[in-house]
Amino acid sequence: MSLLRVGIIGATGYTGSELVRLLAAHPRVEIAALTSRSEAGRPAGAVHPALQDVVELTLTEADRIADFDLDALFLALPHRTSMEFVAAQPQDGPPIIDLSGDFRLADAAIYEAWYETPHVATAALAGAVFGLPELFRDRIPGARLVANPGCYPTAAVLALAPLVRRGLVATEGLVVDAKSGVTGAGATAKPQTHFPDVFGDFRAYGVSRHRHTPEIEQALGRVAGAGVQVLFQPHLLPVDRGILATCYARPAAGLDPDRLQAAYHEDYADEPFVRLREAPPATKHVRGSNFCDVHAVLDERTGLVIAFAAIDNLVKGAAGQAVQNLNLLCDWPETTGLNQGPLCP
Amino acid sequence: MSLLRVGIIGATGYTGSELVRLLAAHPRVEIAALTSRSEAGRPAGAVHPALQDVVELTLTEADRIADFDLDALFLALPHRTSMEFVAAQPQDGPPIIDLSGDFRLADAAIYEAWYETPHVATAALAGAVFGLPELFRDRIPGARLVANPGCYPTAAVLALAPLVRRGLVATEGLVVDAKSGVTGAGATAKPQTHFPDVFGDFRAYGVSRHRHTPEIEQALGRVAGAGVQVLFQPHLLPVDRGILATCYARPAAGLDPDRLQAAYHEDYADEPFVRLREAPPATKHVRGSNFCDVHAVLDERTGLVIAFAAIDNLVKGAAGQAVQNLNLLCDWPETTGLNQGPLCP
Amino acid sequence: MSLLRVGIIGATGYTGSELVRLLAAHPRVEIAALTSRSEAGRPAGAVHPALQDVVELTLTEADRIADFDLDALFLALPHRTSMEFVAAQPQDGPPIIDLSGDFRLADAAIYEAWYETPHVATAALAGAVFGLPELFRDRIPGARLVANPGCYPTAAVLALAPLVRRGLVATEGLVVDAKSGVTGAGATAKPQTHFPDVFGDFRAYGVSRHRHTPEIEQALGRVAGAGVQVLFQPHLLPVDRGILATCYARPAAGLDPDRLQAAYHEDYADEPFVRLREAPPATKHVRGSNFCDVHAVLDERTGLVIAFAAIDNLVKGAAGQAVQNLNLLCDWPETTGLNQGPLCP
Amino acid sequence: MSLLRVGIIGATGYTGSELVRLLAAHPRVEIAALTSRSEAGRPAGAVHPALQDVVELTLTEADRIADFDLDALFLALPHRTSMEFVAAQPQDGPPIIDLSGDFRLADAAIYEAWYETPHVATAALAGAVFGLPELFRDRIPGARLVANPGCYPTAAVLALAPLVRRGLVATEGLVVDAKSGVTGAGATAKPQTHFPDVFGDFRAYGVSRHRHTPEIEQALGRVAGAGVQVLFQPHLLPVDRGILATCYARPAAGLDPDRLQAAYHEDYADEPFVRLREAPPATKHVRGSNFCDVHAVLDERTGLVIAFAAIDNLVKGAAGQAVQNLNLLCDWPETTGLNQGPLCP
Repeated sequence: MSLLRVGIIGATGYTGSELVRLLAAHPRVEIAALTSRSEAGRPAGAVHPALQDVVELTLTEADRIADFDLDALFLALPHRTSMEFVAAQPQDGPPIIDLSGDFRLADAAIYEAWYETPHVATAALAGAVFGLPELFRDRIPGARLVANPGCYPTAAVLALAPLVRRGLVATEGLVVDAKSGVTGAGATAKPQTHFPDVFGDFRAYGVSRHRHTPEIEQALGRVAGAGVQVLFQPHLLPVDRGILATCYARPAAGLDPDRLQAAYHEDYADEPFVRLREAPPATKHVRGSNFCDVHAVLDERTGLVIAFAAIDNLVKGAAGQAVQNLNLLCDWPETTGLNQGPLCP
Repeated sequence: MSLLRVGIIGATGYTGSELVRLLAAHPRVEIAALTSRSEAGRPAGAVHPALQDVVELTLTEADRIADFDLDALFLALPHRTSMEFVAAQPQDGPPIIDLSGDFRLADAAIYEAWYETPHVATAALAGAVFGLPELFRDRIPGARLVANPGCYPTAAVLALAPLVRRGLVATEGLVVDAKSGVTGAGATAKPQTHFPDVFGDFRAYGVSRHRHTPEIEQALGRVAGAGVQVLFQPHLLPVDRGILATCYARPAAGLDPDRLQAAYHEDYADEPFVRLREAPPATKHVRGSNFCDVHAVLDERTGLVIAFAAIDNLVKGAAGQAVQNLNLLCDWPETTGLNQGPLCP
Repeated sequence: MSLLRVGIIGATGYTGSELVRLLAAHPRVEIAALTSRSEAGRPAGAVHPALQDVVELTLTEADRIADFDLDALFLALPHRTSMEFVAAQPQDGPPIIDLSGDFRLADAAIYEAWYETPHVATAALAGAVFGLPELFRDRIPGARLVANPGCYPTAAVLALAPLVRRGLVATEGLVVDAKSGVTGAGATAKPQTHFPDVFGDFRAYGVSRHRHTPEIEQALGRVAGAGVQVLFQPHLLPVDRGILATCYARPAAGLDPDRLQAAYHEDYADEPFVRLREAPPATKHVRGSNFCDVHAVLDERTGLVIAFAAIDNLVKGAAGQAVQNLNLLCDWPETTGLNQGPLCP
Repeated sequence: MSLLRVGIIGATGYTGSELVRLLAAHPRVEIAALTSRSEAGRPAGAVHPALQDVVELTLTEADRIADFDLDALFLALPHRTSMEFVAAQPQDGPPIIDLSGDFRLADAAIYEAWYETPHVATAALAGAVFGLPELFRDRIPGARLVANPGCYPTAAVLALAPLVRRGLVATEGLVVDAKSGVTGAGATAKPQTHFPDVFGDFRAYGVSRHRHTPEIEQALGRVAGAGVQVLFQPHLLPVDRGILATCYARPAAGLDPDRLQAAYHEDYADEPFVRLREAPPATKHVRGSNFCDVHAVLDERTGLVIAFAAIDNLVKGAAGQAVQNLNLLCDWPETTGLNQGPLCP
C-alpha cells in the first residue's frame, strides 16, 4: 500500500508540531514536506526538540512545495497568511485542510467584521466545507478545501448541538463560559504568556470580541436551521493543553431530564470520538487524544440546562480533527492514526 | 496599648494557618491560643512548618480555652463541629467569628436541606450576623457571633450586588460560573485532591448541589429586597489559591453601559478592599491580599451583563475577611493588619 | 497474525493504566485481562475515566487469571505483593515482566536491608534478569522473569553508564541529584501528595535512604565490573510526569571533552530510545514517549563531569520500558508499539 | 517619627514590584519615587495591576530623581545600566542598595570575564560592600553602596558557610545543584519563559557559565579565608518563585554528625531570618517571606555532606534582603517591615 504524501505548511507553531506528532504515527501517511518561513533550512528536530528522531525532515520554504509531489496539504498558518496561500494555489492542486480561521465563516462580511481584514480568497471560501465531522460529516469527502474548526467552537458546538438541533433550548441568551490552556495562544512568546504571570493565575479575556463567537453561532445556526445567538466568554487556564466549555441555556417548555439524555445519546452514542460521561468531564481525561467528552444536565431548581464539553485544544481542537478530516477525505476509517489513548495522568 | 487576646479554634486547617499568618502581623492582636483536636501538644510550627518562628504557641485542646482569658474567638472548624462548639459556649463568653457554614443561613430549614444535618444551635443562629462588611457593615459592631461568608459567596455576591440592589438585572436566571483553587477543598488529602490527577486538569464539580448556592441567594436576596435565584456552578482550578466568579445576568429594560459602571462606582469607590478594574480581574493580582477585584460589562450584541470578581479564597474568602470583621467588632480601622499587598508574581 | 494475549496484574495504579494506554495501541498485543483487588467487577473505564472507550475490559480478581489463557503477564503491584504473587505462580506459567522493586536486586540481603522485609521468592529472584535493554539487552530474550528497572535508576544509569563502563570517572563519590514528578509516588492520595501543598513547591526527600540507591549501584557496578558507590538524592518536582537526573562525577586523569562525547556516541548512537542531545535535556521533550534524552559535559573550570538524563517516569521509567522488554521477549522489533512521539507542549 | 524617603530606580521589573510590596508595608519608610524608562508617566498601579491601591505614585524618569529629596535608593536595574547609573550619581548622594550584579564581584577583572563587559564604575566598586547580613553584617552600617547578593548565591552560600568557615569540608569539588522558579529570569517575556513550554517541564541551563558562580566562590572564599571552587549548576523550576540549593561536599577527616549540626546551630540559632530545619526545606514554606530555611546532613554510606537551603528568590534572594540591608544601614531592628509570614499554601 503506497502512503499518502502530505505536507504541513507552517510547521513551526504548535498546531504544526502536533500534526507532525500525529501524522508520524499514522499508518497510511508519509510526511513528505514541512515548511517554515522563519526556520527554512533547519531540521525539524532542531526547531522542535521533542521531535528529534520522530521526523527526519528539514524545513523548507512554502513556495517550494510544488517540488514535493504532495497528495494533501495541511495549512497551519496564521489567519490572513492562510488565505493568501490558498489564493495562490493552482485549481487542480492537492486538497487542503486549513487550520486557520480564514475559511470557517461562510459569509465574508462576517469574517471581515470580526477579523478586521478583507477576505482575499472569496472564490475558495465559496467552496470550503466546515470540517466538524460529527455534525457535517457528509460534506467532507471530496472537498477541495476543508476549514478545520476552531478549538473553542469544537467544544462549544459539540456540547450544545443535540439541544439546539431539536429545539430543546432557546436559541438566544445562550452562554458559553469557556476555559483554555495557554497553547491556544500560540507558540510565540508574548507578555500575556510569560510564565511567571500566568502560573497560578486565572482570568477572563476577550470580552465581547473573541473571533470564535460567530463561528459558534454559524455552526449552531446550521444545526438549528435558524439564527442562534451566543455570549461566548473565554478564560485563560494556567495549563498547557485543554479546553472546558461550560454552556448555559434556557430550555423550551416541557424539557425533562430523560429527553435531555436521550438527545445526547441519539447524537453521540455511535461517534468514535465523542464520549458521553456520567459526570462533568475533565480536561486531563482527554489530554493528547482526539476525544471530546460531553455531559449535560437539567438543573431542576432553576430550570436551566448546563452542558459541558472537554477537549485537548491541540488535538480534537486542531491537529487531531484535521487528521480526522483527512481520513474522511481519503475514505479511510475515521479513527485511522487516532487511536492514541489520553495521556493521563 | 494592650493587645487583644484572640484564640483560633481549629488551627490545623488552611483557614486556621492563614489566620495565624495574618494575626501574627496584626498590630493590635496577640494570638493567645491555638487549638487542635488531632495535634494538641505539638508546637504550631511543627504542624505548619511555614509558621516556624512566626508563632511560638503549642496547640492545645479546645476544651481548655477558658484558661486563656481570650477576648475573641475565631472558629476554623468543620461545619457541624462548629455549631456544637458554639452551643457549648457560655452566654457571656468572648465574641465569636465563625468561618464555617453553620451560621450563614438564617433559616435553619434551608441549612438542614443543603447540609443534610439538623441545626443544633438555633438560638445562636438567631443572633448571628452575616459578616460581609461591604454589604452589611452596620450590623457587625457589637455582634456576639459573626458568620464569616463562604469563599464563593464573597466573590459572587460582591460581583452582582450593585446590579441586584438597583434592579438592573433580572433576579432569576442568574448564572455564577465560578472557579476555585484547591485550598478551597481543605487541608486533608483526598483522592480528588491528589496532585497528579489535579495538575494540568480542569473540571466542574458539585453540579446542582453546592452548599454555597443558598448563601449566595440569601445575600443577594437581602440586597434586592426580594427573592433571587442563582444557578451556581463551581469548577476546580489547578492552582492553590484564588477564586474567579464569572456571573451572567439579563438586564432590566434600558440598562446602558454608563448606568452599569455608575452602579459599581457608587457602591465600591470608597471600599478599601474592593478594587474596580478596567479589565477582567486576575486571581494572581489579589493573591495573599484581602482585595476583591471587580469588573462588569454589558455585552451589547447579546444584551447580557457579565460581572467578574476575583479574590484569594483564603484571605478575602476566609481569614482576611474574618480579620476585617474583627476590626469592625473592635471599632478599629477596617484595614488594620490587612495592608499586605498581593504576592504577585 | 494472532495477537499475544497479555494480562496486567494490578491495573488500578498509574503504571497499570499507563500499560493499558500503551498496550491498547500495540499492534501485536491484545489486552486480555486486567486485575484489581479493590476494584474487581468494575469496568476499567470507570476506574480510569481517561480509558473509557480505550479498553473495554472489566477488572477481575488476580487469582482468576488462569482462566484467561494469557501469554505474558505484567505485574504492576506494590513491592512485597509482587513477590508473593510470583511465588504462587506455576513454574510453566507465562513469562512475567515485574514492575515492582522485588526482583531488581540480585542479592536478597541487600533487598532485605533496603526494603525492610524478608524476600519470599528467592528462587524466582535467582532467575530474574534486570530489564534495562540498553545495557543488558542480550539477557532478556527467553527470560521467565524480567525485573523492570525503577524510574530513577533508568535515568541515572543511562546517564552514567558510558563513563563508568570505560573507567572515565571515579566509581566512588558519584552524586545523582534527581528530580521526579509526583506520579512517581503512586496513585494513592497521601498528605505528601495533597495538591495545595505540592503546587508551586519543591523539596528534597528520602535523604540517605531511597531504595533506588542500591539498584543504581548494582547496575553501574555490573557495567563497571567493579563496586560503585553513589549518593542518590531525590527531589519532588511539582509536575505530574518526568524525571531529570543531574549526575556529578570526578573524571579519571586525562579525560578530555572529545573522549567524553565519543563514549556517549559509541554507546547510544544506534539506540532507538536514547537521544543524545546538544543541550541539557528537558522532561517535557520526552513526555509520553519512551525516549531517554542524554547530555554530558566536562566542566573545565572544576574538572568535574556533569551527565544529564531525562525520561518520562511512567514510560521509559516504567510501562514503556516494560513494553520494550516484552518486545525483546517476543523477538519483535524493539520499537513495536512505542512509536508515539512526545506530547509537547 | 518622620519616614525615610526612598526611591526605587527601575520599578517595572519583578524586583522593583517586590520592593514596592515590601516597602509599602514598612513602618518607617515612605516610597517617594518610582522610576522607569519605558513606562514613565504611567501610574505604578497600571503597570503592576496587583499594586493598584497599594502604591499611588506615577512612574518618573530616573534622571529626575534629584527632585524627590530621597534618603536612600534601591537600584532594580539590569546589570550594566546599574553601574552607569551609579557612576553618574554625586559623591554625596543618598546611600544606594544595588540589586544588580554590577557591584558584587570585588575584582573588576572577574566581573569582566563573566559579564563580558567592561566595568565602568570601578571607584564605586572599591567602596561597595556585599550585603549578605548573616555573614558580613558588620560591614553594612555606614556603607554608601551595598551590593545586594544574587538569589542563587544567597541560598548556596548560607547553605555551605558553616562548613566552609570551619574547614569541615574540602574547598574544591563543591557542587551546588540549584533550582529556581521562573521569576529569576525577569519580567520580560522570552521564548525560554513562554508558558506552554515551561509548564510541566524541568531542565538545566547555563552549564559551566552562570554568572553567579564567581559570586558564590567569592563569598565562600571570604568565609573560608582561602580559595573555594564550586561547580554551580542551575535548573529552571516550573513555578513562579522559590530557590532550592542542594549542595554536595566532601568532608574533612573526622567530621561527625554532631559536629555538623553544631556548626549550623552556632552560626544560625540567633539569626532572625535563617531557620534550621529538621527535614529538607521546601520552597513553599518560605514563599513571600524573608526566611532562608537550612538543613544539612552527613550521608554516612558515602561519607559526603548534603546541605540544603530554600529561599524565595524575590524576597531573601532580592527585595527582602535589600530591605534587611536598608534596616542595617539605618540602624533599625533588622526585621523591621519584614515580619510577613510565608504565604503557604
